[in-house]
Amino acid sequence: MNVGILGTGAVGRALAEGFAARGHDVAIGTRDVEALLARTEVDAMGTPPFAEWHEAHKNLAVMTQAEAAAHGELVINATAGIASKEALEAAGRDHLVGKIVIDTSNAIDPSSGFPPSLFVASDDSVGEQLQAAFPEARFVKTWNTMTSALMCNPQAVGGGDHTIPLCGNDEAARTEVAGLLREFGWTDILDLGDITAARGMEAALGLWLRILMTGQTPMFNTKVVR
Amino acid sequence: MNVGILGTGAVGRALAEGFAARGHDVAIGTRDVEALLARTEVDAMGTPPFAEWHEAHKNLAVMTQAEAAAHGELVINATAGIASKEALEAAGRDHLVGKIVIDTSNAIDPSSGFPPSLFVASDDSVGEQLQAAFPEARFVKTWNTMTSALMCNPQAVGGGDHTIPLCGNDEAARTEVAGLLREFGWTDILDLGDITAARGMEAALGLWLRILMTGQTPMFNTKVVR
Repeated sequence: MNVGILGTGAVGRALAEGFAARGHDVAIGTRDVEALLARTEVDAMGTPPFAEWHEAHKNLAVMTQAEAAAHGELVINATAGIASKEALEAAGRDHLVGKIVIDTSNAIDPSSGFPPSLFVASDDSVGEQLQAAFPEARFVKTWNTMTSALMCNPQAVGGGDHTIPLCGNDEAARTEVAGLLREFGWTDILDLGDITAARGMEAALGLWLRILMTGQTPMFNTKVVR
Repeated sequence: MNVGILGTGAVGRALAEGFAARGHDVAIGTRDVEALLARTEVDAMGTPPFAEWHEAHKNLAVMTQAEAAAHGELVINATAGIASKEALEAAGRDHLVGKIVIDTSNAIDPSSGFPPSLFVASDDSVGEQLQAAFPEARFVKTWNTMTSALMCNPQAVGGGDHTIPLCGNDEAARTEVAGLLREFGWTDILDLGDITAARGMEAALGLWLRILMTGQTPMFNTKVVR
C-alpha cells in the first residue's frame, strides 16, 4: 500500500520505518525538503536531526506534504496537534478526499512549558477539529496514547499485552485501521466509536506525561483490564 | 482507626463498607442527616436512596460533616468535585489540621450533560484546589480513577491485576495511604508524587467514561504495563 506520512519528528519516523518494514511504499511529507535535510540541530523534543536518521533510511522518499498526500492511499498525520490543520491544508484537500487519514496528534500547547497543558478544553479534541475541517477525509484517531517506539513494536513492553484505542466516524475505516494495527502486533485494539472519543484519548496525555516523569522512561503503555 | 467519610453517594457507601469490613470505626458525614434519611428517590447517578442502603448497614454511624470529620483520624472526601470545597468547609478547618484527607473526587461539571466535561482546565485539578484551600490538611488523591465497586475490591476485575495511582504533597501521607490500599487488595500502587499529578488523574475521566459508554459496564480498570 502507498502510505503518505505528514511529519518528520519521532512519530513520523517510527511509522515510516514500521510501514516500510512491512513492505508498504512510504513517502514522508514536509514543508520544505531542502530546509529539513539541511537542519543539524536536535529538536525541542530531543529528537536528532532528520538528515541523520535519513542517512540510515535512504529508501524512504522525502517530498512535499502535497506530494506525500497524493502518493498515499493512506495518509497519516504525524505532525504536532497545534500545526496539524495547517499541515493538512498544505497536503491539499483534494489529496484527502475519501481517504483514511490516521491522526496521531496530541493537543500540546507548545507555549505552556513542561509538562505542557492542552490547547483544547475537555469537550473538544484535535481529532474532532480536523474531521470538521476536512469533512471528506475519513479520520481515524489512534497511536496518540504511547511513545513512538511502541507504535509499530508493542512487544517492546510487557510482551505486547496492553491496549491501543482508536476512534473515528467511519466504521469501515476503523475496521481497516484495526487490521493494520494487528499487522504491527497489536492484540488488544479498543474501538471507541465516533471521533468524539478523541477527547478522552487526547486527555489521557496528562496522566501519560506524569507516569513518564515519575518512571523516567516512556517505555510503558496502559492495558484496559476488563 | 476512626474514619470520617464525607459524601453519601456510591463512593461514600463503598468506602464506608470497605473500611468497616476491615474493622475500622466509620462515620459518614452529610449536610442534613434527617433530610438524607427521608429521601426516597434514586439520585442523578442512578444510586438508590441512602436510607435503603443504610437499612442494611445500620452499624455505620451517620452524622453531620463536622461531626464525621472530628471523628476521623483519617478523613475521606467522597463528595462530587464541584461540591468538595464547600463540604470540607462544612467539615471544619480545625477538624482537618494535620490529618490525611483522601480526595476521591472528580471535576465533573454537572451542568454539562452526559458525557460530562470538566470544570478545570488541563493545568489545574480539584486535588490542587483543595490542597490550596486547606493547606494544613495532608491531601492524598486516589480512588478517583475507577468505579466504586472496585475501590475496596480490586479482585472483582482481572484478578486485581491493574493499577491504582495516588499523589499528594506529603510523602509520609502517600506511604500511609498506599498501606491502606494494600489492605484492600491493591497490588500495583503507582505513587505519582506531588498533588499536581491530580491533573492527569482527573483528566483520565474522559477516556474512562468513553470506555464505559462503549463497553456498557463500569467494571474495568487500567493497568500501567511497564
